[in-house]
Amino acid sequence: MKFALDAMGGDFAPHAVIQGALDALEKTSKPLGIILVGDETAIHKELDGRNTDAIEIFHTDEVVTMEDKGSKVFKQKPNSSLVQGIRMVKNGDADGFISAGHTGAVMSTSLLSLGRIPGVRRPALAAFFPTEGRGKVLCDVGANPDAKPEHLVQFALMASHYYDHVEGFASPKIGLINIGAEPSKGSELYVETYKLLSEMPNFVGNIEGRHLLTSEADVLICDGFVGNTLLKFAEFWITFFTNEIKTKSDEKLSYKIGASLMKPILNDLINRFDYEEHGGVPLLGVNGISIVCHGSSGPRSIMNSIFLGQKCIENNLIADTQKSLANHFGN
Amino acid sequence: MKFALDAMGGDFAPHAVIQGALDALEKTSKPLGIILVGDETAIHKELDGRNTDAIEIFHTDEVVTMEDKGSKVFKQKPNSSLVQGIRMVKNGDADGFISAGHTGAVMSTSLLSLGRIPGVRRPALAAFFPTEGRGKVLCDVGANPDAKPEHLVQFALMASHYYDHVEGFASPKIGLINIGAEPSKGSELYVETYKLLSEMPNFVGNIEGRHLLTSEADVLICDGFVGNTLLKFAEFWITFFTNEIKTKSDEKLSYKIGASLMKPILNDLINRFDYEEHGGVPLLGVNGISIVCHGSSGPRSIMNSIFLGQKCIENNLIADTQKSLANHFGN
Repeated sequence: MKFALDAMGGDFAPHAVIQGALDALEKTSKPLGIILVGDETAIHKELDGRNTDAIEIFHTDEVVTMEDKGSKVFKQKPNSSLVQGIRMVKNGDADGFISAGHTGAVMSTSLLSLGRIPGVRRPALAAFFPTEGRGKVLCDVGANPDAKPEHLVQFALMASHYYDHVEGFASPKIGLINIGAEPSKGSELYVETYKLLSEMPNFVGNIEGRHLLTSEADVLICDGFVGNTLLKFAEFWITFFTNEIKTKSDEKLSYKIGASLMKPILNDLINRFDYEEHGGVPLLGVNGISIVCHGSSGPRSIMNSIFLGQKCIENNLIADTQKSLANHFGN
Repeated sequence: MKFALDAMGGDFAPHAVIQGALDALEKTSKPLGIILVGDETAIHKELDGRNTDAIEIFHTDEVVTMEDKGSKVFKQKPNSSLVQGIRMVKNGDADGFISAGHTGAVMSTSLLSLGRIPGVRRPALAAFFPTEGRGKVLCDVGANPDAKPEHLVQFALMASHYYDHVEGFASPKIGLINIGAEPSKGSELYVETYKLLSEMPNFVGNIEGRHLLTSEADVLICDGFVGNTLLKFAEFWITFFTNEIKTKSDEKLSYKIGASLMKPILNDLINRFDYEEHGGVPLLGVNGISIVCHGSSGPRSIMNSIFLGQKCIENNLIADTQKSLANHFGN
């Protein structure tokens, strides 16, 4: 299996990407090839002689920045690592693409280049939320700020397949994010979506904000506006509590001693929400494996994204999603 | 000034309501009258002889439960403490109404009984978020799961007046909750709202989920679906961190010692987000003072809601909101 890596994407590129690739090659027991896509001088400098036969380098000279409009990158920066890496998946030169770069650009370029899985109306972005149990998938987290009920139903189906095939838990339970438990609650979009989801056997009903991470639902469905706002708000809380305790602990010796005694608890809390542990999540509904990682991904997140890509392919995520959509929607 | 209190509303009624009223009477230096509305036997039992001349009791024999549909309570339970208390404001027998009961029912009954401030298209629910600085007001947090751009602009205006008149900070800055900083970001509703808000001098732009509580904006505007979900998600995080540290601390002696050394930090963290410190928030846009408190309000929250009600009235919140709406929208 071969993955094209966006060596220029993310806050810590190319270091984090290249180190992540080297770590994955060292740890995996399966045949694995890596194509590092990006500026060859920068890549060689970072590799510093640690090349192996499993690593190829593909030079590109355009750079996608956060200032670029995501939907324009495919046309305006054809020789960027992002566009070239996705093209490799399209052409069959790579089995999957991984990037910690501009999420909107990865989304848009993947859609334009790879197309949609037949039957999919709108691809969606999912995020994995670590929890005490087996974790939850929140979908959509930003691809579709405006969505229709039938889109949300497709998100539920695609995210369930992801959870089943890649996270490894069969028949995940589906919850609809809402402002009350009753079917009549929420905006028109959510009232209508509830009706459609009720036809799915694994639907467990509406889930309110305070129960998102503790409910029985494995897969949480919402539009991209709500999902993106929730995801970023969660990031705020995790960072806030961590920083607050760190900063305040330095103010007084007794706090410092207290914090050091409590270190295992505090570290456990922080680690529980560490997205690096999980890696990225593939774009759901796109006809090819294209994985988006957090912008501040370190090597561990990149390595785990490669392992995640392996699972998507081994477990036939795309073919099975297509089959399931056809069964459910009859197209 | 006289307030009608829903003695039967909230998780800890009638105790919390009555104790809160007694505390307010003791602490205030202003003329204050209280009408306890509810079951007189239960009220007398709780008062246990602590009546003063400042307290009247108004007997009602119907009870609003969380199972009641909010919009039906006005007609179906006319002799409930909630409906009778609001009627007193309508009839001029009380200057304001305070309830920790069924939010939807208070909202709906207030609207049906008191009507809207002339010029207001949709009343809204606001919530106060304590922060390191002077706190933020989030609006709407649930009254309007479906809203139009012109509604959101009215929410901005009404919430700004509340922040200015009641929190006491002039010319609050207004932020629009969104999934990116650029004006083109978000759903259609948010793109259109951005355009309209841009005409307001205190508008500071879009605010993303991760910056909600740290941005320069004092007043955060969104539709009721997003606001309600965010509010409840915030409650989750605060409770989660607090419980996590409490539970884990009991597992080992060293953790227990650490937690006790760090107690001032941890308590400060918990207290910072204590909604009891602030009390409820009046329904914005309703033509009369009707204050909704958190369901699990204790006496402190009720007492602070009474003080908040005093400020709303002293500072002419309703008349000034009406004037300002007329200036802005020309009606």
